[in-house]
Amino acid sequence: MCELLGMSANVPTDICFSFSGLRARGGRTGPHKDGWGMAMYRDTNVWTLHDPSPSADSDIAEVISNTSLKCDIVISHIRQANVGAVCLLNTHPFSRLLWDKTWSYAHNGQLEDANALPITLYHPLGNTDSERAFCWIIEQLQARLGESEPSLDEISTILSELALQLKSRGVFNMMLSDGVRLYCFCTTKLHWITRRAPFKKATLSDEDVIIDFKEVTTDKDVVTVIATQPLTHDETWQQMEEGELCVFEGGEVVCQIKAN
Amino acid sequence: MCELLGMSANVPTDICFSFSGLRARGGRTGPHKDGWGMAMYRDTNVWTLHDPSPSADSDIAEVISNTSLKCDIVISHIRQANVGAVCLLNTHPFSRLLWDKTWSYAHNGQLEDANALPITLYHPLGNTDSERAFCWIIEQLQARLGESEPSLDEISTILSELALQLKSRGVFNMMLSDGVRLYCFCTTKLHWITRRAPFKKATLSDEDVIIDFKEVTTDKDVVTVIATQPLTHDETWQQMEEGELCVFEGGEVVCQIKAN
Repeated sequence: MCELLGMSANVPTDICFSFSGLRARGGRTGPHKDGWGMAMYRDTNVWTLHDPSPSADSDIAEVISNTSLKCDIVISHIRQANVGAVCLLNTHPFSRLLWDKTWSYAHNGQLEDANALPITLYHPLGNTDSERAFCWIIEQLQARLGESEPSLDEISTILSELALQLKSRGVFNMMLSDGVRLYCFCTTKLHWITRRAPFKKATLSDEDVIIDFKEVTTDKDVVTVIATQPLTHDETWQQMEEGELCVFEGGEVVCQIKAN
Repeated sequence: MCELLGMSANVPTDICFSFSGLRARGGRTGPHKDGWGMAMYRDTNVWTLHDPSPSADSDIAEVISNTSLKCDIVISHIRQANVGAVCLLNTHPFSRLLWDKTWSYAHNGQLEDANALPITLYHPLGNTDSERAFCWIIEQLQARLGESEPSLDEISTILSELALQLKSRGVFNMMLSDGVRLYCFCTTKLHWITRRAPFKKATLSDEDVIIDFKEVTTDKDVVTVIATQPLTHDETWQQMEEGELCVFEGGEVVCQIKAN
């Protein structure tokens, strides 16, 4: 299993507090030592970082967790390898072009017989079930929704169908973003919290770190953090349901599709 | 045109001095504002960073140029887009798996009709002539040298032939690495310098920065830096010849093939 971390905010927001908590699980408080990566969007532009080393020991992870890098959307992933060797090209998040945007994606779980998912246009660079499923999703979205970008409802409906198909092959917890919205799908474990005024203090579960969000925000800020497991132990996180798709934009839930 | 920066060293070495010089050319002292990226190898493991923003303004480039990240081999690239939009997936360096290693590559120049280069196994994610040429090189190396890793001489001979073929389509200045060696090919512009004891001071051409290498090295260190244009103005850089392939390992030249 791996761990996922996502963020959606209505103003460029620092992820380093949450990332410090996630990072500790990459070889210290958790077993996810097989690499880590992140995609950070700001004004729909994305930059990425991929490192197949354990995040708990990584020089560059140390730099990132101590640096204020503000962004609108983040997808981060720490890996515990099941399918595919530990190497750069198997390190999430993966990115592909669709509708003139760069889509980034990370997956937690295992999928049976992922190589049976038909793809013809988008090809994996590595050999994980996760990347194969991503290529299939992007290809299906394009095939079913056409060459230009459809509405939120159209994308969400199809994405929910595709995610449920993947869920039938195993465990499919997933984060996907185009730089505007963050699409999250849950099979087993995904939790989220929206922080807004009045902001309070919070304490990381995995590191001896407390932050007072009041000191680093304004009254208008809305910031949602999504993670495999809650990252703080003194806040109330919401647990996503099995088969639920939840879409965030500017820190707010803009679409929710439940399996039943 | 773009600018390339490479390093090969016999001990993990900091690239931040050279990167500061290169970075200034990404939108301030030079016009290469269409993104930048780097691949950093240490003990044959590689991590990568890709950012389609101008390096001169990039938050993460600021962090990297002020941080000591030690590595054995670096390939960095700042882009001035000719072919392919400015986006993450067109941002060098590109990486692919071959002989159980992660190979990284960056290119400077333009190639005519790159889409005519036949590929069947390795597919580009973006739409640059550079990435297409990379996929072709990796596929040709595998097709001509087999499934397991050949000797330095065998790889260099074939790589020189392939690079000369690409040069016949335009300008092909290139850096390629497997984490052990750094292969550099020159069509128009590549310069290199090997620094070893007794180390001296050097001054960047693009930034008001002086470094005394004596203070950051030991007598045994051998560090070669390769760049499109010399990065310092008080050292003597060697200019590579048109059609020359030069291979570095542990900071030393281990193979040189000239066109004539």
